[in-house]
Amino acid sequence: MFAGIDVGGANTKVATSATDGFIDTIYAPLWKNKAILYDVLLEVKQKFEIGAQAGIEAVGVVMTGELCDCFTTKREGVLHIKKTLSRVFKNVKFFDIDCAFRDGSEVDKDPLSFASTNWLASAKLLSEQYKDAIFIDIGSTTTDVIPIVRGEIKAKRTDLGRLKFGELIYSGVLRTNLATLLKKVEIGEKGENCRTSSELFAITADAYRVLGYLNKDDYRCESPDSHAFAGRENEGKSRISAMRRLARVVCCDLEEIGEDSVVSIAEQVKEAQVAELVASMKSMKQKYELKMVVSAGIGDFIVKEAADLLNIEFLSLSSRYGKEISAVFPAYAVTKLLEQTFS
Amino acid sequence: MFAGIDVGGANTKVATSATDGFIDTIYAPLWKNKAILYDVLLEVKQKFEIGAQAGIEAVGVVMTGELCDCFTTKREGVLHIKKTLSRVFKNVKFFDIDCAFRDGSEVDKDPLSFASTNWLASAKLLSEQYKDAIFIDIGSTTTDVIPIVRGEIKAKRTDLGRLKFGELIYSGVLRTNLATLLKKVEIGEKGENCRTSSELFAITADAYRVLGYLNKDDYRCESPDSHAFAGRENEGKSRISAMRRLARVVCCDLEEIGEDSVVSIAEQVKEAQVAELVASMKSMKQKYELKMVVSAGIGDFIVKEAADLLNIEFLSLSSRYGKEISAVFPAYAVTKLLEQTFS
Repeated sequence: MFAGIDVGGANTKVATSATDGFIDTIYAPLWKNKAILYDVLLEVKQKFEIGAQAGIEAVGVVMTGELCDCFTTKREGVLHIKKTLSRVFKNVKFFDIDCAFRDGSEVDKDPLSFASTNWLASAKLLSEQYKDAIFIDIGSTTTDVIPIVRGEIKAKRTDLGRLKFGELIYSGVLRTNLATLLKKVEIGEKGENCRTSSELFAITADAYRVLGYLNKDDYRCESPDSHAFAGRENEGKSRISAMRRLARVVCCDLEEIGEDSVVSIAEQVKEAQVAELVASMKSMKQKYELKMVVSAGIGDFIVKEAADLLNIEFLSLSSRYGKEISAVFPAYAVTKLLEQTFS
Repeated sequence: MFAGIDVGGANTKVATSATDGFIDTIYAPLWKNKAILYDVLLEVKQKFEIGAQAGIEAVGVVMTGELCDCFTTKREGVLHIKKTLSRVFKNVKFFDIDCAFRDGSEVDKDPLSFASTNWLASAKLLSEQYKDAIFIDIGSTTTDVIPIVRGEIKAKRTDLGRLKFGELIYSGVLRTNLATLLKKVEIGEKGENCRTSSELFAITADAYRVLGYLNKDDYRCESPDSHAFAGRENEGKSRISAMRRLARVVCCDLEEIGEDSVVSIAEQVKEAQVAELVASMKSMKQKYELKMVVSAGIGDFIVKEAADLLNIEFLSLSSRYGKEISAVFPAYAVTKLLEQTFS
């Protein structure tokens, strides 16, 4: 059996190739403490060693965590991630920007070829089945928008290139500071425009919690005011707490503007996020004449809405593979690709 | 002698009324731990009790810290701040939105009348001398833009009202996440537009550190990657560290895009900040026929540039009162107003 690990800056995700295999998302904020990765991987290894998970032949790795600001350079980040993986697991294969699996020694030679590869593993696996489609993965923090044309992955291979071409939109449905999405919001009866506060007062998880897209268990990150909820974190993820955070975005409290205004702010967050996705999808749809969207990730309710607006066919990987696999799709994809290559 | 204290969410600022009086800015992030205020105030009190500071008759208080997300409501925040001040000092007078000083018992009756008052104390003092002017205070986190017309302070009295009318711009020259200022940046030789990352990768302090407006000692807040610099914080405030953070805003490292691109990002930050200030100033200049700007705060290099663009007279309070008083102007103003009222 094979395993796939996707090392992100905030979450490490794991999948195995077996039917009903092991799937997990572990909140592991490298940016706070890069040493945490070792502990997390050790824990994962222990889970691999019991029951149905026993006998992992090889571990495939993709990453984005190298961009974390605990690393001076991406090079340093890739090498740290590689080293930590190699300390914990025996047979580790790293997925590179040419879609090939390489040994750790190859990573040492050219670390940057292994940076930001998680979306590529997903796109590679999907390109075998969907020859012409826009693959979209909205996660906690980012959105990948990848054109696949006649089986070829058309996206740029660096984050910078993808940011330029709308193939990477750096917003997600959990961790994104609302102030980065909305410079102004409409508020009050007259629909007046109001500037927003630039503090980290509320995140997309708050907006989608208030709108009912997420429940407490889906709120898989710290709330911005987690300092105030030390020891009672669950309370911080309640709908009322999320509403209080949304009110602060316009320097108010909930008493001052009330629930209706707060719900309206949350709706404007969703509109903004749908709109930026629509803009990217539209240009790809036109450029490559693509007629279908394949969607992974926890934010596929955003993709669905954007696809409907553009009148483009929407296929949800969570319908096909289940919600759990869809949420860790790069880890799942790298497992499957590894299995194809080595079994 | 009198003292003034301005309790913000990130900094507590202090001034006394004596010539060559005591001036201080203490980094005290209430949002992390509201109990910190007591310790900070106790320290301030001890300083008051020695030498030239001995014999404080009364302490005047303004605040903005009530908006911190350690408080469920502003009401709770105002009451916490009031209670803490009253525990430490004997004769405390709270400045309200009618520009009057009140005792603690009055705060209990109507806490919201004491919320967000620091800009008002500054404007009140200045309105005695400058009958027709735009008063602007750019601090670490926010920008106040206050029209004074025939001696009357025309700004709204709530943060929400001020956000709507461009009288409060929630960005400053230290703590502001660059992703809230710039959705896109021009980058590279072709000047291509590139989306930015929404992470808290870099702040305005980084941009102005790189451009030379700030030195290490001016960088009076935590750097976004302070976790990575535990025990060697000074290194985190070097120009090279600031450049590395700016590179991350487009998901790059410094090796990848180089110093020129990073400096260009910093310049675009300044342009964005000047532009949003110009927009506010322009509408006030037209509406009230104001021909002069009076500027306080550590960001007056931004105000100067905006005033020049609008061809409007620029008066810097740091030229008149010195840089130190200008940086804590609300605390200084509340001291002076208290002195006028009670001596």
